[in-house]
Amino acid sequence: MPAQTMDQIVSLAKRRGFVFPGSDIYGGLQGTYDYGPLGVELKNNLKAAWWRANVWERDDMEGIDTAILMNKLVWRYSGHEETFVDPMVDCRNCQGRFRADHLQGDVCPNCGARDLTEPRPFNMMFKTQVGPVPDPESFAYLRPETAQGIFVNFKNVLDSTNRKLPFGIAQIGKAFRNEITPRNFIFRVREFEQMEIEYFVRPGEDEAWHRRWIEDRTNWWVNVCGLRREDLCEYHVPAADLAHYSKATVDLMYRYPIGVEELEGIANRTDFDLGSHTKDQDKLNLTARVQANSNATERLSYFDHLTNKHIVPYVVEPSAGVDRGVLAVLCSAYDEEQLDKGDTRTVLRLKPALAPIKVAILPLKKNHDLIVAQARGIKRDLQATGDMRSVYDDTAAIGKLYRRQDEVGTPFCVTVDFQSLKDQTVTVRDRDTMQQERVAIPDLRDYLRERLR
Amino acid sequence: MPAQTMDQIVSLAKRRGFVFPGSDIYGGLQGTYDYGPLGVELKNNLKAAWWRANVWERDDMEGIDTAILMNKLVWRYSGHEETFVDPMVDCRNCQGRFRADHLQGDVCPNCGARDLTEPRPFNMMFKTQVGPVPDPESFAYLRPETAQGIFVNFKNVLDSTNRKLPFGIAQIGKAFRNEITPRNFIFRVREFEQMEIEYFVRPGEDEAWHRRWIEDRTNWWVNVCGLRREDLCEYHVPAADLAHYSKATVDLMYRYPIGVEELEGIANRTDFDLGSHTKDQDKLNLTARVQANSNATERLSYFDHLTNKHIVPYVVEPSAGVDRGVLAVLCSAYDEEQLDKGDTRTVLRLKPALAPIKVAILPLKKNHDLIVAQARGIKRDLQATGDMRSVYDDTAAIGKLYRRQDEVGTPFCVTVDFQSLKDQTVTVRDRDTMQQERVAIPDLRDYLRERLR
Repeated sequence: MPAQTMDQIVSLAKRRGFVFPGSDIYGGLQGTYDYGPLGVELKNNLKAAWWRANVWERDDMEGIDTAILMNKLVWRYSGHEETFVDPMVDCRNCQGRFRADHLQGDVCPNCGARDLTEPRPFNMMFKTQVGPVPDPESFAYLRPETAQGIFVNFKNVLDSTNRKLPFGIAQIGKAFRNEITPRNFIFRVREFEQMEIEYFVRPGEDEAWHRRWIEDRTNWWVNVCGLRREDLCEYHVPAADLAHYSKATVDLMYRYPIGVEELEGIANRTDFDLGSHTKDQDKLNLTARVQANSNATERLSYFDHLTNKHIVPYVVEPSAGVDRGVLAVLCSAYDEEQLDKGDTRTVLRLKPALAPIKVAILPLKKNHDLIVAQARGIKRDLQATGDMRSVYDDTAAIGKLYRRQDEVGTPFCVTVDFQSLKDQTVTVRDRDTMQQERVAIPDLRDYLRERLR
Repeated sequence: MPAQTMDQIVSLAKRRGFVFPGSDIYGGLQGTYDYGPLGVELKNNLKAAWWRANVWERDDMEGIDTAILMNKLVWRYSGHEETFVDPMVDCRNCQGRFRADHLQGDVCPNCGARDLTEPRPFNMMFKTQVGPVPDPESFAYLRPETAQGIFVNFKNVLDSTNRKLPFGIAQIGKAFRNEITPRNFIFRVREFEQMEIEYFVRPGEDEAWHRRWIEDRTNWWVNVCGLRREDLCEYHVPAADLAHYSKATVDLMYRYPIGVEELEGIANRTDFDLGSHTKDQDKLNLTARVQANSNATERLSYFDHLTNKHIVPYVVEPSAGVDRGVLAVLCSAYDEEQLDKGDTRTVLRLKPALAPIKVAILPLKKNHDLIVAQARGIKRDLQATGDMRSVYDDTAAIGKLYRRQDEVGTPFCVTVDFQSLKDQTVTVRDRDTMQQERVAIPDLRDYLRERLR
């Protein structure tokens, strides 16, 4: 039985060290979370899996890692200064502020008064003063998305790699949005992480690539992350709701315990982005409606050897939330399994590649010197491979130790027992089947590596 | 000959896509840089190597990943609000602002006037408004260090992992400092990344652990990152210059082209940090002088089963800069090698684990269908392993392709030639020796894996 409520996940996350509320000992800071010892491994594994699939295992992708603080002109020409707003209402009774489109009815969700203002736009970008001079013009925004760091580096990447269309640029990094009402654990937060691809194509090839990326990304969530296909669906944003620069946007929706919500958005953004940040806009036959740019110092175009023309590529953008991904993976992997005799066990059925701990080494007796020495030796050997997060645990009876590892998704437990001392074998217990197998210690590393793949 | 000037590195970095100035097309944003396609791989490899050595390959470490935005009380009790300042002077003539301790003499470095103000303290934390209500109290700082995220989670980590002393908590993440005068490429920037460990020990064991961490960290820079031991030295901060909470601080200094500068700091911080953020300070026999804390909701102490007492651990902090590490690695690996006939080649002698590209697959003839098909097939096979960033390049003659890969530190080039079609072998060229060896294609993956380790 997968997770039915967010509380199951939140409780497990805090108790076992996946995710803690941010600044916890000072009463928190709304919309921020800290990843604990297991959470950081899970999140890093998810990001590494994305990078592997989208950068290393493809022929057509470069990576990048751009700064969070960018010149404010980026956000003028991207349109964020003007349009990155949420509708906000005030309660005249309790002075609470809320996102208008999240309200149910015209009643204040805080005090219940029916005295709300009309919605007003609220820009969600965080702003900060940069440099020692208190000049009102010396500010920067914390980026609300990683995408713009890719667009403004289009020329730098092209010049340094000599890529031919179609190709993409991929980035993972933090982004910040001053959400009016952060909520639902790590689903809607003020500080979060994105995994974004900007995939540049010839105009005319954009629709086929859009379709292909929707399939690719869906398959990745299913095959690599273990989400059930039936928990995912596509929301085709209706034409009337599309941003003016988008030709088509498809949201990949996941069935979270809080409802069906966006996990990733995949948009066909035409030549809007490169066209917005380029110089010489009037010479480039842009199709998108862009703001006149008088500041950019480079032409963000591409010389197409096939047609001998300078063109501005179209872009398809698969944009996923890391934290939403972690949450989906946790919800999907969570299982309360009914065992014999009315017993239940909680088990996270994580894909081995995502599991925070790959193997736990458990001594059957914690006070038996030879068993302990052998178990510690195995732990050291396994962790020395550098590719296998291993832990040693002797703080409970073996049955309880197994349950502890089940609950955090560790694929394998290795137990050193009395037989180990005689014949140099250990038992390897499989998380999902709970079956145990005896494996010779010298074969253990290869045995685990094979099964962790 | 290693890098003699920063310009050699800056030029290579931009041309080949390691590091670009941030927000380049809009004239930049001082003190910010973007990592390009090769830079992001190098930086990720450096961070992964640090995480592997300090978290996965040890028995006594947990990882964590905390938010950049934290409750402002963190920075009040850490002392940053009051003391995280640099001395700043103004030039009365040109209105320039400078860091007083970076000036040479009493002359304005901008206009040359001898009309500078007395130094005043300037707080280096970036500040931003959080939440929709424009309340002067609703702000947060961008963290100027990752360390505090560890301290305020001490209890969370302890409760979720049940660790015994000594143990550490490791974190990699962005930090921000509003430097008065950012300079020297990625050495002194406003947005940077840290790799920090807070290692908790019993009081009395702190000095031995401090010494041990200095050795461990030095060895890591040498053995894992390839820095020359003779380019590193220890600067023992004189007692008079120590921060009041530090019992001893040793800076690991690296011989950059700009001079000998700090790469990592390793401090014995006593019980100052946990003592500052704990409640019930008066019950805990703190040795450090701390500000009275009336806000913390948890006791950051540890129940020591050896003595049956609650103690506040001492902490040893190895704190390294990721960007400074990348810069040191680039400078150290950079070599202009004299070849026969007065020829020179630029080669980055990176440790294979750090190299952005592990293997380049090069077809001897780019228009020969069979050679191209075989080369592409090899590339796909290698990248499908998921552990080897591979590239394909056919855009120049083979000699030039080799030089291109030398310059970015690719350990191996695989060339598919006419003989490959006959006997299913390829040449594998070693970056450092330039020796070539013929390897059977079915053995190639294992051959490379072995040598890349």
